[in-house]
Amino acid sequence: MHSMTVDLTVPRASISAAAATALLDGAEAKARSLGMTIAIAVVDESGVLKAFRRMDGAALVAVGASQKKALCAVGFGLATGKPWHDFIKDDPILASGAHELPDFILLGGGVPIRVGGALVGAVGVSGGHYAQDEACALAGLAALGLP
Amino acid sequence: MHSMTVDLTVPRASISAAAATALLDGAEAKARSLGMTIAIAVVDESGVLKAFRRMDGAALVAVGASQKKALCAVGFGLATGKPWHDFIKDDPILASGAHELPDFILLGGGVPIRVGGALVGAVGVSGGHYAQDEACALAGLAALGLP
Amino acid sequence: MHSMTVDLTVPRASISAAAATALLDGAEAKARSLGMTIAIAVVDESGVLKAFRRMDGAALVAVGASQKKALCAVGFGLATGKPWHDFIKDDPILASGAHELPDFILLGGGVPIRVGGALVGAVGVSGGHYAQDEACALAGLAALGLP
Amino acid sequence: MHSMTVDLTVPRASISAAAATALLDGAEAKARSLGMTIAIAVVDESGVLKAFRRMDGAALVAVGASQKKALCAVGFGLATGKPWHDFIKDDPILASGAHELPDFILLGGGVPIRVGGALVGAVGVSGGHYAQDEACALAGLAALGLP
Repeated sequence: MHSMTVDLTVPRASISAAAATALLDGAEAKARSLGMTIAIAVVDESGVLKAFRRMDGAALVAVGASQKKALCAVGFGLATGKPWHDFIKDDPILASGAHELPDFILLGGGVPIRVGGALVGAVGVSGGHYAQDEACALAGLAALGLP
Repeated sequence: MHSMTVDLTVPRASISAAAATALLDGAEAKARSLGMTIAIAVVDESGVLKAFRRMDGAALVAVGASQKKALCAVGFGLATGKPWHDFIKDDPILASGAHELPDFILLGGGVPIRVGGALVGAVGVSGGHYAQDEACALAGLAALGLP
Repeated sequence: MHSMTVDLTVPRASISAAAATALLDGAEAKARSLGMTIAIAVVDESGVLKAFRRMDGAALVAVGASQKKALCAVGFGLATGKPWHDFIKDDPILASGAHELPDFILLGGGVPIRVGGALVGAVGVSGGHYAQDEACALAGLAALGLP
Repeated sequence: MHSMTVDLTVPRASISAAAATALLDGAEAKARSLGMTIAIAVVDESGVLKAFRRMDGAALVAVGASQKKALCAVGFGLATGKPWHDFIKDDPILASGAHELPDFILLGGGVPIRVGGALVGAVGVSGGHYAQDEACALAGLAALGLP
């Protein structure tokens, strides 16, 4: 008798709601310390919205921008911003092609969330200069004890 | 000589981020007491997303449904669900017309947020039967001391 | 010293590519035995497309219908078709509300994929009468040893 | 007496489901040999999805990118990537115009499928650098005995 064994599933880890809320709190605290008002979006490993907060006074554009940054970061598994810019700036095909993908945004402030090597979600921040947005996103990760 | 004075602005009141977070907490606590997992969306008086949370294990459809319920509730200034159903059920033109509006959803769980008579936002809950969803939404309002 | 422990992630199981391909094969074999030509879509636990096949001669509408049925089945965690119809037919609010959700489709042929109690994806079939579509979807699950 | 004869139809050749599956297998085998995880989309001569597979672990962005590359390749009858870049790089009107078309993407990895001179479909691959993606797409064609 012969048999075939196929794994029916692959395991995934997804950011928990508790962690997502703690991440929002950490990013917001950083924004306050910088005198900024931001929107913060957390998506899960599949790009589905997990948590969102818009601080009072945050720019309207930040609502969509924060979500797009998070989606880009989890979609590629890469932070938006300078590393992406350096990666594509001398490759015109890649630079052009990336911008044609609907979930792509170069602007800093989107950061993947990795736990134990697994991509479990991403955070996106918008509201100030992209360098400040990124600082807030990283402060959110730091609140989870993540680098 | 005649003169006219025009007010350049109209005042608005909008749900605060602190209140939106408290509302999420109140709705989530109710869901836990009912053994449910839900998604909760809070939009401001202009229908723009203010706060969102998806509990671990909530159905995928709840992500979009919660937002649509909140949008419908603030758009019409009416709770989704039974009052709407009773209002339109014997008026075929209204019943038909309402369904043609992209932000309309009859399903209960979307509730306007009124403070001092002003419509300042809305909450939408999805994850269980619409009667349960509505109970969670109302628990969220109760956490703000609102009826 | 005090410390707080929050689980940063929740585990998920997602249909594997090997299982998704076997599912396509099983559904296609059933369609051949019925003299049908169908499209078959498999989505993962988050509704993201995992595998798709359109048999030669399958109706054009089946391309979108199969994907929508799969998305509905995983979004609600319920098979499309008769159980849904029975559930909503006497509840006008639920019947109306469900149809307002963009990922909802009553038509049979969408079936959740559960492994060990976890919702790991869904399959959607379109091409014939919905009862035949459902038979093909279930044949796909049977090819994985699932009920 | 004069008469005119008009052909009521024009013949088309379209990639078969069997060929599309063999193409997926060939592209996946190449990806495995390169240590990559990719998504592969095959569209027919009309741009309609024919077959799709997302390998376990492939980036989320690859789901949409693979389909867009295939659509671009069949839409223009040209491979995405370097030939396109060389074609448009010194023609600013063409370069600008191409990017305005919703199905355009410069990024390599989309390749038309031609059989006996006829454009019968296209394949799109995403998951790694575009040069690797293109290599996988060509390996898929090679599995069909096509150049």
